[in-house]
Amino acid sequence: MTSKEARAFAPASIGNVAVGFDMLGHSLSGYGDTATVRRTTDGRVRVTAIRGLVTELPRDAKANTAGRALLGLAKLRPGVGFEVELDKGIPLGSGMGGSAASAVAALVAANAVLEKPVSLETLYDLAMDGEAAASGSRHGDNVAPMLLGGLVIAPAKGAPVKVPVPKGLHCALVHPHFVLETRKARAALKGAYELHDFVVQSEGLALLLAGCWTKNVDLIRRGFRDVLVEPRRAKLIPGFQRVKEAALDCGALGSSISGAGPSVFAWFESKAKATRAGAAMAEAFKSVKLEADVLVSKVDGPAAKVI
Amino acid sequence: MTSKEARAFAPASIGNVAVGFDMLGHSLSGYGDTATVRRTTDGRVRVTAIRGLVTELPRDAKANTAGRALLGLAKLRPGVGFEVELDKGIPLGSGMGGSAASAVAALVAANAVLEKPVSLETLYDLAMDGEAAASGSRHGDNVAPMLLGGLVIAPAKGAPVKVPVPKGLHCALVHPHFVLETRKARAALKGAYELHDFVVQSEGLALLLAGCWTKNVDLIRRGFRDVLVEPRRAKLIPGFQRVKEAALDCGALGSSISGAGPSVFAWFESKAKATRAGAAMAEAFKSVKLEADVLVSKVDGPAAKVI
Repeated sequence: MTSKEARAFAPASIGNVAVGFDMLGHSLSGYGDTATVRRTTDGRVRVTAIRGLVTELPRDAKANTAGRALLGLAKLRPGVGFEVELDKGIPLGSGMGGSAASAVAALVAANAVLEKPVSLETLYDLAMDGEAAASGSRHGDNVAPMLLGGLVIAPAKGAPVKVPVPKGLHCALVHPHFVLETRKARAALKGAYELHDFVVQSEGLALLLAGCWTKNVDLIRRGFRDVLVEPRRAKLIPGFQRVKEAALDCGALGSSISGAGPSVFAWFESKAKATRAGAAMAEAFKSVKLEADVLVSKVDGPAAKVI
Repeated sequence: MTSKEARAFAPASIGNVAVGFDMLGHSLSGYGDTATVRRTTDGRVRVTAIRGLVTELPRDAKANTAGRALLGLAKLRPGVGFEVELDKGIPLGSGMGGSAASAVAALVAANAVLEKPVSLETLYDLAMDGEAAASGSRHGDNVAPMLLGGLVIAPAKGAPVKVPVPKGLHCALVHPHFVLETRKARAALKGAYELHDFVVQSEGLALLLAGCWTKNVDLIRRGFRDVLVEPRRAKLIPGFQRVKEAALDCGALGSSISGAGPSVFAWFESKAKATRAGAAMAEAFKSVKLEADVLVSKVDGPAAKVI
């Protein structure tokens, strides 16, 4: 007999890893959301509490990322319902996947109280549905790395695929105290694109993945770029170019916008380099009068888990 | 003392491997161009003979792909010149990289008669310059796999990167007797593209590469697609959909247009499947009154070499 209540933690994550708009992300240690889920027998889903860093979120299950994900799960197990309490540990609109983490934490906890748990692929599918409640768009680049841990290819259909990363690879993420709404960041991407830019971006994606599989940081450096999305979003983030330059000056393999922003991240060959760079990146935000928090994490970050 | 004359062979190749427009290609056994190069001391480059399947090619060095590539090489070695004879074994306008193969064969032969040979990266750069003489566009997805052999990521700058492929992976290529000019095929690509299509294509590229590195043909099958270029070019190739369907009906991991067409290729888990499919694909071309040749090759095809 499974327990009727479980609690799960889902880490923050970086979506759109430069070359991988909407389809490549990695998890982060240090921030995350926790969900406590109780199994009920009335087939309904209720969001009973939202605590922590962010509380101004919809409590209507359909409009809440965790609620919508659980509604999907409940449909697969007729008669089963859920009550969920959320403890939000990821700042709103930070570009670290806060909406996704609630959905993933809720699903992982709920799956632990089901007598017949669903597959990881199903959880992934439901988590994308859940996140779409907040972002208005279905994409898996935050939920996939939260579910699997580390750097993950996030396809629209079918199971996500984990990518190995060279040992020691660390990420510095700086989160300026300024909210950029995901919908606004998405609106900046409207309009037409050139095939040539896509070729350049594809080269980058291929080189970065090749570098990961062959443990060759020079290939990762050659591939780490964003000629498609970053140029259209950079102007929404005050000081972006200075922050990116600070990262590159500190030896970053590359630097870009985390998710829909405004956080900026960069990859480094070691924790020491990432730590030094994080401080320099935060200084660069200060030069445009923005305070910023610094997070240093392995690129091969943690996966969501029952706690 | 190096010899004053050398001969080299460069294989045919498939460019634009579905998910890798202009940046992913693989070599083919069975067809290829041969170049015989003599070192001279007058700093000039002369195309002295063009024999074989295709002879109606420019003899002016600047306008000939082999000639232009050798002009670039001669600039790096002041005082050195070259005479080159070409034996063309790749049909014109077939989508198997005939223009590229002459440039690569000439460079590999010429490098063998230099007292100080240049690096592979330099040969790659010069070969792209050479091919641009014919295609009007600089891209490395044919020359890179010819130089390295097998499946290769072909960046605009820097060394190309070889991708391992699962053992047994074979390609069936059918070449209809019908010429599609590269410039016409490129013109079909003009216009704007949607970001969403780029995301779908990027997922495919990432899954296909993941499948190659992890020897997982199911991932290759999931990733093998072309939502960007194939839809715009398919109508230039009579019978394309029928030929592709014939390949998929025979168990192809995927099927698309080779290079700028009109050849159609597909990947299979075994040589036996590729052989059966090749016959079915040629039959499908017959249904639109086109005779077609079939080539079956390992995806991990040969590299150019001095002979």
